[in-house]
Amino acid sequence: MKSTFLHAPGDIRVEEVPQPHILAPSDAIVRVTAACVCGSDLWPYRGVRAIGHPTSMRHELVGVVEEVGAEVSTVKPGDFVISPFSFSDNTCQSCRAGFPSACDHLAFFGSTDSAGLPTGGAQSEFARIPMADGSLVVVPAPFDDALVPALLSLADVMSTGHHAAVSAGVGPGDVAVVVGDGAVGLSGVLAAARLGAERVIAMSRHQDRSDLARAFGATDVVAERGEAGIAAIRELLGGDLADAALECVGTEQSMDQAIGSVRGGGRVGYVGVPVGGSRLPIGVLFSRNITVGGGMAPARHYIPELLPEVLSGAIDPGRVFDLELSLDDAAEGYAAMDERRAIKSLLRP
Amino acid sequence: MKSTFLHAPGDIRVEEVPQPHILAPSDAIVRVTAACVCGSDLWPYRGVRAIGHPTSMRHELVGVVEEVGAEVSTVKPGDFVISPFSFSDNTCQSCRAGFPSACDHLAFFGSTDSAGLPTGGAQSEFARIPMADGSLVVVPAPFDDALVPALLSLADVMSTGHHAAVSAGVGPGDVAVVVGDGAVGLSGVLAAARLGAERVIAMSRHQDRSDLARAFGATDVVAERGEAGIAAIRELLGGDLADAALECVGTEQSMDQAIGSVRGGGRVGYVGVPVGGSRLPIGVLFSRNITVGGGMAPARHYIPELLPEVLSGAIDPGRVFDLELSLDDAAEGYAAMDERRAIKSLLRP
Repeated sequence: MKSTFLHAPGDIRVEEVPQPHILAPSDAIVRVTAACVCGSDLWPYRGVRAIGHPTSMRHELVGVVEEVGAEVSTVKPGDFVISPFSFSDNTCQSCRAGFPSACDHLAFFGSTDSAGLPTGGAQSEFARIPMADGSLVVVPAPFDDALVPALLSLADVMSTGHHAAVSAGVGPGDVAVVVGDGAVGLSGVLAAARLGAERVIAMSRHQDRSDLARAFGATDVVAERGEAGIAAIRELLGGDLADAALECVGTEQSMDQAIGSVRGGGRVGYVGVPVGGSRLPIGVLFSRNITVGGGMAPARHYIPELLPEVLSGAIDPGRVFDLELSLDDAAEGYAAMDERRAIKSLLRP
Repeated sequence: MKSTFLHAPGDIRVEEVPQPHILAPSDAIVRVTAACVCGSDLWPYRGVRAIGHPTSMRHELVGVVEEVGAEVSTVKPGDFVISPFSFSDNTCQSCRAGFPSACDHLAFFGSTDSAGLPTGGAQSEFARIPMADGSLVVVPAPFDDALVPALLSLADVMSTGHHAAVSAGVGPGDVAVVVGDGAVGLSGVLAAARLGAERVIAMSRHQDRSDLARAFGATDVVAERGEAGIAAIRELLGGDLADAALECVGTEQSMDQAIGSVRGGGRVGYVGVPVGGSRLPIGVLFSRNITVGGGMAPARHYIPELLPEVLSGAIDPGRVFDLELSLDDAAEGYAAMDERRAIKSLLRP
């Protein structure tokens, strides 16, 4: 089958590899309908985050179950499923508490599962899903094929934007600032609006992205950054600051921007994978009583809540995909995102 | 009047100084009924935190209003008042949101107010209170004199323990771990139990303190620390970890202990003033989805909620005071706490 590999920074290749098989009785094999490139895939692509090479790429898919192991009971061949970016048992304490992304048996695509068995990348024709009962969510049939991008978004990007908003405690009447206008930030705008924020301020300096932010519910767009960005927020709010901020980038600057955008006692939800010196300045947080929460989104926990709204058309998070390519053209999907020609690339095997 | 000063680490002296006067129309002058030594006072006392000398000591009092400025409308001479450890306007955005300890005009005892006018220490016979309407809470008369320690506890220690529990999101059914068995930690035990925690695990290795923790509602006491402490918590919980942890010390070790004590998606409330390298390890927090919140307690915001329960006797946070001295003996009050002969010292001018 075809599968995508990173051979060196900037060097993406789609290659023939053996098709995955059931390796454990809790496995499922899924034929991939759609996969995509994640903003976090750009870190190794850019060489910002060193990884071994070649590396099997990456971690979001929807598809049809081909085969299941003997112990799998909640999904069966023919089911259309969403696979969150992380695999989880859905039975440990963290899973039961709603945090499958902190599962005791947490595992990822393109690596190995907790038993040491290989997991392939999701940008492939087929994928082995460990702990299938715990990891996969079945989409009830029938549904419109046009919903595939929105369903795929639940695997990571929309669930991650939602996690930023939930972690920032966004609720009715709040003023929320969203730092980052990538696909996650835009999903965060949608999530904050959906959770009842009265005002959603998107920090964006790209027309296509700020347009989508407004379509997703942003009431204001601030192009400035740093102190100028904070001053612009104060001006919009008559001297006040936001109640909540969603940090959707993962750099030191974006975290400082989020922290500086909220009032005393404000809340920051962060979902950007911390890179490039990102840290939590305890002195500032303590003196201003700012709460910070977040991490990898517990997508498996959120999908049952978000899926009905995608199926009904109440939300369309699939709009973050503005480039659709054949899996064969995965390299272009990476390049377009890297060069900011695309917000997010969808790949069809 | 008499007032307490730190001349050098370990060198506390009670000296004669001029009595404070109204300096601004929003001031009140309070005759101190009781003041006390705070755990945070021990940092400069021990020389851990460098401050100038001599320094006017410190920040918690209850007393009777002697005089008010022309603009003061909510307190009057003769009122018995609680002064939180920080002064606030109670009108800015942070105050309105319930965080007076992040007030735009925040000021402290033993320093200057936001207009640059001097504030004396609370371990004195009289004190000038700036922004009296915003800062002071009147205790309705009459009340039993025996409640003075409990009322004084609301000025800081009980409100701070409560803030740790609130910041850790403690609610009904939770398992909460309290790191620190000083007066704040013990107050945190009381607060967590009051907020409905099903199980409160106090980390303590001192008999007198763990006895009081149990009296305040601790269901379990763990004497071990570090990895052994976490293992002991797991054993108590059948392999699980806590939902919430209250960090009530302020060191790197205590923060790590709190973070390590909670499950994935758990919550840490921290109120220990960060000293000695305390930091928030973003990598661990991100990967385990742990939320951290806290800072200086918004005591002015909490007192109206806690005061009725003190007056009714429903809670008795005043039990943290196990040493009562004349103001003249302030030096012994510090020494007794420093040497762990006392949990917390109350001073009567």
